[in-house]
Amino acid sequence: MLLQTEIIKKKRDKKELELQEIDYLIQAYTRGEVPDYQMSAWLMAVFFNGMTEKETFGLTKSMINSGITVDFSEVKKFKVDKHSTGGVGDKTSLILGPIVAAAGIPVPMISGRGLGHTGGTLDKLESIPGFNTQLDLEQFIDAIKEHEIAFIGQTKEICPADKKLYALRDVTATVDCIPLICASIMSKKLAEGIDGLVLDVKYGSGAFMKKSKDAAILAKYLMKIAKRYGKKISAYITSMNQPLGRYAGNSLEVFECVEIMKGKTHINKYGYDSYADTRELSLVLASEMMFLTGKYKNREKSYAHAKEILDSGKAWEKFKELCVLHTGNIDKLPLPNSSQTVKATKKGYIHSFDVERIGLAAIKIRAGRKVKEDVIEGTAGIEFHCKIGDAVNKGDIVYTIHGNNQDLFKYALPDLEASYVVKATKVKKDKLILNHFT
Amino acid sequence: MLLQTEIIKKKRDKKELELQEIDYLIQAYTRGEVPDYQMSAWLMAVFFNGMTEKETFGLTKSMINSGITVDFSEVKKFKVDKHSTGGVGDKTSLILGPIVAAAGIPVPMISGRGLGHTGGTLDKLESIPGFNTQLDLEQFIDAIKEHEIAFIGQTKEICPADKKLYALRDVTATVDCIPLICASIMSKKLAEGIDGLVLDVKYGSGAFMKKSKDAAILAKYLMKIAKRYGKKISAYITSMNQPLGRYAGNSLEVFECVEIMKGKTHINKYGYDSYADTRELSLVLASEMMFLTGKYKNREKSYAHAKEILDSGKAWEKFKELCVLHTGNIDKLPLPNSSQTVKATKKGYIHSFDVERIGLAAIKIRAGRKVKEDVIEGTAGIEFHCKIGDAVNKGDIVYTIHGNNQDLFKYALPDLEASYVVKATKVKKDKLILNHFT
Repeated sequence: MLLQTEIIKKKRDKKELELQEIDYLIQAYTRGEVPDYQMSAWLMAVFFNGMTEKETFGLTKSMINSGITVDFSEVKKFKVDKHSTGGVGDKTSLILGPIVAAAGIPVPMISGRGLGHTGGTLDKLESIPGFNTQLDLEQFIDAIKEHEIAFIGQTKEICPADKKLYALRDVTATVDCIPLICASIMSKKLAEGIDGLVLDVKYGSGAFMKKSKDAAILAKYLMKIAKRYGKKISAYITSMNQPLGRYAGNSLEVFECVEIMKGKTHINKYGYDSYADTRELSLVLASEMMFLTGKYKNREKSYAHAKEILDSGKAWEKFKELCVLHTGNIDKLPLPNSSQTVKATKKGYIHSFDVERIGLAAIKIRAGRKVKEDVIEGTAGIEFHCKIGDAVNKGDIVYTIHGNNQDLFKYALPDLEASYVVKATKVKKDKLILNHFT
Repeated sequence: MLLQTEIIKKKRDKKELELQEIDYLIQAYTRGEVPDYQMSAWLMAVFFNGMTEKETFGLTKSMINSGITVDFSEVKKFKVDKHSTGGVGDKTSLILGPIVAAAGIPVPMISGRGLGHTGGTLDKLESIPGFNTQLDLEQFIDAIKEHEIAFIGQTKEICPADKKLYALRDVTATVDCIPLICASIMSKKLAEGIDGLVLDVKYGSGAFMKKSKDAAILAKYLMKIAKRYGKKISAYITSMNQPLGRYAGNSLEVFECVEIMKGKTHINKYGYDSYADTRELSLVLASEMMFLTGKYKNREKSYAHAKEILDSGKAWEKFKELCVLHTGNIDKLPLPNSSQTVKATKKGYIHSFDVERIGLAAIKIRAGRKVKEDVIEGTAGIEFHCKIGDAVNKGDIVYTIHGNNQDLFKYALPDLEASYVVKATKVKKDKLILNHFT
């Protein structure tokens, strides 16, 4: 029997794999010596039998070792990043990055593109005319040295095993498996050469984890792996029971972030600021990133510093600096020229949103991708006029569809109309931050 | 999501698949439109979640439909075959085939080659000089019409899905899974165009199923599938706790069968005939095949007829006729010219055999294949001098290794020496036929 067949069988029979066995599998797979059909059988066996913490750590390590680790030896300072498990309107990176960098803390951001119903930071940034995310690693390291912040996408050199494995998992129904998710997330983040990481693990109708309990399990698992690597880490469990902030959509989310960094508010007809949750979550995550450096006495101090940076306009200055560095022209940010509203059909209280469905509606107007090859329309997006607990009247606007291609709006309408529930009974507002694990 | 990814996910989530979904998967896989890596993920999900009887029936049907069914419309009589799940020294096909054919009942035998520790009927027949098993389907059908019996191997036209799937299962640790085994066995047998089938499901240390309970589960499952197809079927659970008969090895097994068909016995030092179990099992299976045709009032009648055919030499005449038809010269059957004995190292009773290990020893002297590509030595084999319950003295011969290549014998010795257990306490003889399900 071939070695890899024995490894598949061992996992199938729920025996713990040796780290050398996992490493053999991953490196040989990356080199193309273990075929996809054996890897997918192994992945399905992992789906059913799970992995021990030791195995998951080994898998993460092997995935990191399948490529290079970014060499930040010239940047002596504590480097910190944030990872979100993704959601609709989740744009905090664009605000927290500049805040933390403005505090003099390096934030090397290796970001992804949107896929499925969740958005991606690179797509958002690329809606800024001229914004170039195609730096090579040397340019990236130089930018971090000089500006404390820069954005790049996944490169071929970093975790090639993850790239290959992820594509395989996507077509073999082996995506939703905690140890595989953990290894995928942590290998990429650890290969960035960071010292600290703040996790934003989403739960709810728009999140990968529908229940906060499962999000907590994932968060704790991710933390264990990072701690075994000697990294500082903490995790927030936050709600994706409703979209974050006022907009979902690439240039519209950049617009929202710019407004927040400029100190603007948008008080809606229910009397609160539509930007409040985006601002608050960005501040919490930024201040935690800052706290992890060890430079602050307590979280109150780091939060106060983050808020001072945002309120004083220093984050906005840093954001503009970052646009220049990436040759983007933020003054020319394109905004949509057409819109269509979706109105409440009865009076009552907003009880819930099907956020995944809102995300799918966004894909239909090309604000996001269904498959990797889809082309995005930068200005397309959805505006959110109310949140859970708001009292709406019949005819109140719930959503506005925005974009330059009005013909597409009709495809998003049925999903949006079916994506919220209004009931006669009062209901509490949704809690944004549910838990913090340190 | 692609259709096949949805089918994998559905099975992964333990939902029953529609027959159309299974059929899509199998036909598209056979055509090369579903890649191996998706099929292996599906197979592993089936390994964990099983298949309902309806699904297994659908899988069997789809595998049959992936190729042709042998057209026996010109052979109006009831056609019957036997399938054994395989073991060491399991040579009954060579005796029961001629018995049943001599009774005027067509026996279209599509046989396999040996792989792993179990032997294959085609390899045994091909140890007869000139014996040609490469008939095409037309020649095969003509031979059945004229002689009631002929042997061929798996053809490309019959169940191509099974061939492809089996190769994939072999390297992805998805072989030992009852619904997949059932579909593989039954699709091939049903595509033969037979009306009845007798199963010899082995259990014990030399069988795929180590426990009789598991053999019974497999037998009952196979019978259900066959009955849904309207076939007559019955199943014996028989022991593979010790090798069957006197020899394992290709020409040696043919020799044993010829001796039995010639009415010879071989009374050993423990006072019983070394051929007794081979003869008895062949008669039981042959008489059951005959009984399934409906031409006999009861099993006593069909057994008496089978015994009469064997004892009168009619089976031996049919066997010689069959050799002529396949251009084989049975008078020139080669026999081994060298041998080496394995002797008991202490006095006591034979308590058990590790029959799988005996089979592996046989592979080491090239009586069998480890991988498909291995070349077999026709005369190599092992002779069994005692059975469970026999009282041996120190120095009594337990095995004789036979073959023309004496240099190989040493590789088989350690396995053979470790393959039997002698204890001081008395022990009952092993029961050959444990159960019969009708």
